[in-house]
Amino acid sequence: MANAQHIARIIDQALGRTPADLVIRNTRFLEVISGKLFHGDIAICGDRIVGTQESYHGVKEIDGSDLTVVPGFIDTHVHCESSLVTPLEFDRCVLPRGTTTAICDPHEIANVLGSEGIQYFMRCAEQSCLDLRVQLSSCVPTTELETAGARLSAADLVALRDHPSVIGLAEFMNYPGLLAKDPQVLDKLAAFQGWHIDGHAPLVRGKNLNAYLACGICTCHETTSAEEAREKLSKGMHVLIREGTVSKDLAALAPLLDARTSNAMAFCTDDRNPLDIAEQGHLDYLIRRAIALGIAEGDAYRAATWSAARAFGLRDRGLVAPGKRADLVLLSDYRCCEVHSVVSAGRLVSPELFAQRQTIDPVGLNSVKRAIVRPRDFLMPATTGDSTIAVIGVNAGSIVTDHRRLPPQIRDGYYQADTRRDILKVCVLERHGHSGDIGRGFVQGFGLLRGALASSVGHDSHNLCVLGSQDDDMAVAVNRLIDIGGGFAIALDGQIIEELPLPVAGLMSLAPYETVHQQLAALRDAVQALGCSLPEPFLQLAFLALPVIPHLKITDQGLVDVDNFCLLNTG
Amino acid sequence: MANAQHIARIIDQALGRTPADLVIRNTRFLEVISGKLFHGDIAICGDRIVGTQESYHGVKEIDGSDLTVVPGFIDTHVHCESSLVTPLEFDRCVLPRGTTTAICDPHEIANVLGSEGIQYFMRCAEQSCLDLRVQLSSCVPTTELETAGARLSAADLVALRDHPSVIGLAEFMNYPGLLAKDPQVLDKLAAFQGWHIDGHAPLVRGKNLNAYLACGICTCHETTSAEEAREKLSKGMHVLIREGTVSKDLAALAPLLDARTSNAMAFCTDDRNPLDIAEQGHLDYLIRRAIALGIAEGDAYRAATWSAARAFGLRDRGLVAPGKRADLVLLSDYRCCEVHSVVSAGRLVSPELFAQRQTIDPVGLNSVKRAIVRPRDFLMPATTGDSTIAVIGVNAGSIVTDHRRLPPQIRDGYYQADTRRDILKVCVLERHGHSGDIGRGFVQGFGLLRGALASSVGHDSHNLCVLGSQDDDMAVAVNRLIDIGGGFAIALDGQIIEELPLPVAGLMSLAPYETVHQQLAALRDAVQALGCSLPEPFLQLAFLALPVIPHLKITDQGLVDVDNFCLLNTG
Repeated sequence: MANAQHIARIIDQALGRTPADLVIRNTRFLEVISGKLFHGDIAICGDRIVGTQESYHGVKEIDGSDLTVVPGFIDTHVHCESSLVTPLEFDRCVLPRGTTTAICDPHEIANVLGSEGIQYFMRCAEQSCLDLRVQLSSCVPTTELETAGARLSAADLVALRDHPSVIGLAEFMNYPGLLAKDPQVLDKLAAFQGWHIDGHAPLVRGKNLNAYLACGICTCHETTSAEEAREKLSKGMHVLIREGTVSKDLAALAPLLDARTSNAMAFCTDDRNPLDIAEQGHLDYLIRRAIALGIAEGDAYRAATWSAARAFGLRDRGLVAPGKRADLVLLSDYRCCEVHSVVSAGRLVSPELFAQRQTIDPVGLNSVKRAIVRPRDFLMPATTGDSTIAVIGVNAGSIVTDHRRLPPQIRDGYYQADTRRDILKVCVLERHGHSGDIGRGFVQGFGLLRGALASSVGHDSHNLCVLGSQDDDMAVAVNRLIDIGGGFAIALDGQIIEELPLPVAGLMSLAPYETVHQQLAALRDAVQALGCSLPEPFLQLAFLALPVIPHLKITDQGLVDVDNFCLLNTG
Repeated sequence: MANAQHIARIIDQALGRTPADLVIRNTRFLEVISGKLFHGDIAICGDRIVGTQESYHGVKEIDGSDLTVVPGFIDTHVHCESSLVTPLEFDRCVLPRGTTTAICDPHEIANVLGSEGIQYFMRCAEQSCLDLRVQLSSCVPTTELETAGARLSAADLVALRDHPSVIGLAEFMNYPGLLAKDPQVLDKLAAFQGWHIDGHAPLVRGKNLNAYLACGICTCHETTSAEEAREKLSKGMHVLIREGTVSKDLAALAPLLDARTSNAMAFCTDDRNPLDIAEQGHLDYLIRRAIALGIAEGDAYRAATWSAARAFGLRDRGLVAPGKRADLVLLSDYRCCEVHSVVSAGRLVSPELFAQRQTIDPVGLNSVKRAIVRPRDFLMPATTGDSTIAVIGVNAGSIVTDHRRLPPQIRDGYYQADTRRDILKVCVLERHGHSGDIGRGFVQGFGLLRGALASSVGHDSHNLCVLGSQDDDMAVAVNRLIDIGGGFAIALDGQIIEELPLPVAGLMSLAPYETVHQQLAALRDAVQALGCSLPEPFLQLAFLALPVIPHLKITDQGLVDVDNFCLLNTG
């Protein structure tokens, strides 16, 4: 925070008495409230814009004559872990694309490590060049039908609340618990009255939505149709338009963005993998797409900046205006949102800037805590007389699964995978050093003909997920992950043929994002060579374990009938 | 703040499991983000809206079928003292007109009593039915060219900051001090970085405006032209459109209000006397006038509610939506903003509601601290050889005065009033128990033919102001105010012919606002009977003492040449 001496510097530089620290000269910039473009210099002192629309000189100067300057973009809801890199690599990956503020929910690492994981994110937030805001994960564990690595109570969350990166409570997924007045839910809601409480309310409508909002929850990124968005907006809820790697809502919701609603809408990525970030972009991609879909430029940029800031109470940013945080995106193409360069808190973003950050020691390097498995651990004794078994039906590009009933393949008294019908065995192994339980089932839709895939990313408890046609290969893949502390692995004929180590809590790599991008591309190619037709096989595997998404899922405790919210006896 | 048990009640009532505390049934309401009107019931639990657009039953029900419900109005900048009644009477006066939140600057009482005056407002805020927010007065005293009753440092203000009614620092009037980097100004600005700092920047433009904004000041109610407003808006400043008793900016600024700018504009009354409130209205009047000037209803109501709330970081209000504070105005006429009834924090506003407030003991009951005066204390010895003297030129309806030079009237070696030329003597007498100084001068424009007017309201130091043609009557009027602890008084032929006692710090009456309204009307009539042509003689008298308004003013230290910001030797 600025002291009196710094305020004096600000005044002198704003008045032009002394050169500003940084000046973007002779540029065009967007005033997002009116959506109008203005011309002039932009003067910056420290981390703050101190002058616009006037002529300034600077200690450093950038020629802005061919550029258009807009406020830095705000990702209103993101799980950095989904980028598979550490928060400081995420920083290095997305900030050059214009994302100057990321409001993250460290929900994945919190499920593995609890408060320690959130505190790791807070330490990273103190070093990151973008402004990383750490929301407090509200639902750890997500359900009682799985074994997570940690459990966070209202008191645990309150103990973390005073860190400057905290805005409030992260996505409140447990709306059934809210409607049922679960005492733990009420405690968390009560503890965060007056703070920002972020929502997660897919298809919640009518009086249920009223109750959800009445508890003080005010934003939602789980809106998938225009009709749903209209109801939420008309009830004062801010709609965060999500375009992630799997969940894509932009095409459905962008048509609602106009001069008025853009004040109550914003953008987010939720879960976006490094391939998509590298190949398409981050928030720049969402803005570009929204404009391509016919949204007025001013309305799209307003949503991505000022409206996002106001929705989360960040009153110091979102405008190219004196007094605001100098988070600026310099565009070579305004309409196509082509980023030329980025200024973050007054600093020109460059490799040198990232190099100045202090390293943060990773946490959770031994988070895969279980004994090695043998192929026979995956055996599933056939129950005499069952003519069908439950099979998870996977659909490409959706985390919603089908609950299918199919005739089993039985050999030697055990249920077997059957690649002719694309039925693979899928297992989830508890890996937090608690029960060591293994949930077993079958999945259809991956198209894998040989080998096995294993992952220590398994939403949201992040147990070990594995699928394949051969128990031998499944054991090899799982044991490799136990050995390297987590990641993605592909086994074939008793050998690991490709892998991506994710040693940080079994969720994040220690490698640069460029390396992870390459490794991920190699994994994708290898999985496709084994016959798999899904564009995102590891993401689809990871979401098989999330028992709050319909219809049939699997956890370490077994198959979960999500519609009836109960465990299913296999067979 | 809601505890877990209350959250459970909220959920039950929102879901319709139990009747809501209060339901406005079958009504039409404005969703101010889109500006659209919706139909349905509005359910309220405690102080919070818990349901809209659905059907509800309530313990209490209001038939809303002939009404339109809009969010409660927010007065973004008001000196309650200008209503001449206590904060709790102000509450009773304006809340029934739809003003459910008043962001006040207790600047007047702070100049008389310092922190004690601000704390009195805070105690009142704890009892008021409207939400009275108490900003911390940033410039006490206003200048060094006058003697105020108190002096507030940055440390004094910080000590008051944690009261829940505080949003931040009140109107930062001392922009010359800011531009000059006055150390005390820098201390105050530094202490409130990250808090809301309200502005006061009349005609501040260009780089000066940049410097002012760069210090974190973000709202301004002193904008008088559309061109000035456009620059402020384009620099991210929120423009608060003022329509007070003397300063009226609505006609000039309302044309700027549209779908986009209405998100960054709001309304305020600043100084509005009880006559205007009674005869025209409060914020309801501003909205009515804005719509009559051609502003779309949705844009006018948006500015008065949601935008005002967001400009000041009040995220719990400004919408008719679940989760928001149940501050609602029920209109019998939407377009004309005719208020039928008001709900404040879930309570139907009624005489009974006001009767439930705890009484707050008044402060500053003996704030007029000086010895009685004799007529000769007003004598002004003529300086040999001066062919002209400085005369304050008053213009009806403006607090800006002229600096006139006119030939003096001299008798017995003293300068004299000259009613033929409408030149009256005007004096300001220090009344806080400090120096006892008297500033003496002349004023033209009141039209008073006989008698004298005196006031203990004298912006912003609130010394005793008196004017007249006869020293005898001036002494009578002043001594009466000393005797009764402040107020307004009219003396004629050695007698008090009309008065309005203002015993609370010499600024506020202890009577009900209806009584004050009658007393003020009687004073106005009496002054007119003495020949005065000004519609607001006491307000114009009070503003003669404000040395930050051009061009010639008078304080206890003498005549002030505002343009050169220095004292003037009389003659």
